[in-house]
Amino acid sequence: MGKLFKYPDGSVREIETKKAKKSKDINKANLGTDFEDCINESNEYYLKKGVAAIYKKPTPVQIVKVDYPARNKAKIVEAYYKTPSTTDYNGIFKEKYIDFEAKTCKELNFSFERIYEHQIRHLERIDKLGGIAFLIIEFSSVDEVYILPAKLLLEKYEESLNGGRKSIPYEYIKDNGFIVKQGFNPRLDYLDAVKKWYFKKK
Amino acid sequence: MGKLFKYPDGSVREIETKKAKKSKDINKANLGTDFEDCINESNEYYLKKGVAAIYKKPTPVQIVKVDYPARNKAKIVEAYYKTPSTTDYNGIFKEKYIDFEAKTCKELNFSFERIYEHQIRHLERIDKLGGIAFLIIEFSSVDEVYILPAKLLLEKYEESLNGGRKSIPYEYIKDNGFIVKQGFNPRLDYLDAVKKWYFKKK
Repeated sequence: MGKLFKYPDGSVREIETKKAKKSKDINKANLGTDFEDCINESNEYYLKKGVAAIYKKPTPVQIVKVDYPARNKAKIVEAYYKTPSTTDYNGIFKEKYIDFEAKTCKELNFSFERIYEHQIRHLERIDKLGGIAFLIIEFSSVDEVYILPAKLLLEKYEESLNGGRKSIPYEYIKDNGFIVKQGFNPRLDYLDAVKKWYFKKK
Repeated sequence: MGKLFKYPDGSVREIETKKAKKSKDINKANLGTDFEDCINESNEYYLKKGVAAIYKKPTPVQIVKVDYPARNKAKIVEAYYKTPSTTDYNGIFKEKYIDFEAKTCKELNFSFERIYEHQIRHLERIDKLGGIAFLIIEFSSVDEVYILPAKLLLEKYEESLNGGRKSIPYEYIKDNGFIVKQGFNPRLDYLDAVKKWYFKKK
């Protein structure tokens, strides 16, 4: 298990290192990572079964300085985390483009401080272009995972911009989202929730 | 303009730095980068027009050591380029998942040494799942760009594994691929070639 890095948006990610220095930026609670591991393992299962091909995008890094201490082994010696321009995951399911952002919430609400506006706009754009776009949210205190369609996320976000609540309460997501079954294999059958939401409405 | 880094597969990419040391691994010919720039600019055009949302994936980096010299500004001080697990570009076009790898060839043939087997298998998988999968190839000596559908790439690759030619000649790609119009905006109208190939056959 690596160290955790807290992003400006409040999300926590594992840094692939055993040597990373401790600091107040490192949140010891292993939150986002466990959830991401579950999604990644589920994606491997879907890939093996030939159901879908969905990948996590690499963490975007701004590379500043590279050394070449040995042939064919460039060493990056100065780089910084960049703000992701889109979302965490994308791929193909039932011949459609699928795109989503994953978030873990300790509290029983999802605050808009946890997501960049351009990520919401990205999901809006994918939805308009006919893709499957959503947020997958883990409420760790109750151990429940939901899918919230991009349209509903956007609706609530627009309300927040017009003086409304700056977060989406758990109850709203429970009532309007789609619960994700947890099990052994896949650990998170979120594509089943996508079927219930996206493919049943047609 | 940054420095160029030559990958083990022979492809050349720009490294985002002004400080990168010169070395024999840096190929001064600005090949892959110009081509990628053209694709990226075309993607921005398609995005603005609401035609498609296609992005280049971040370069995958294995992060080994991170320092925290200041609050909220993690500095990566040791990292290495990783082999990409999939392809360069993916996104949505006409409600379909689209996925491709981009390559520049100085010679009038495309050698299979230029692409990883797992990237070819990835394109094969996307094709089987009903996505739009292809290779986009620039032949810089004749200033021509083609789309080669994943099925044809795979066919030629399987032939090469069974004792056949280890590269695809320009003539084959010219005769069986789809030429990409070059212009001002978009600089490379490769989605027009996708339309002629993928959407006309249906």
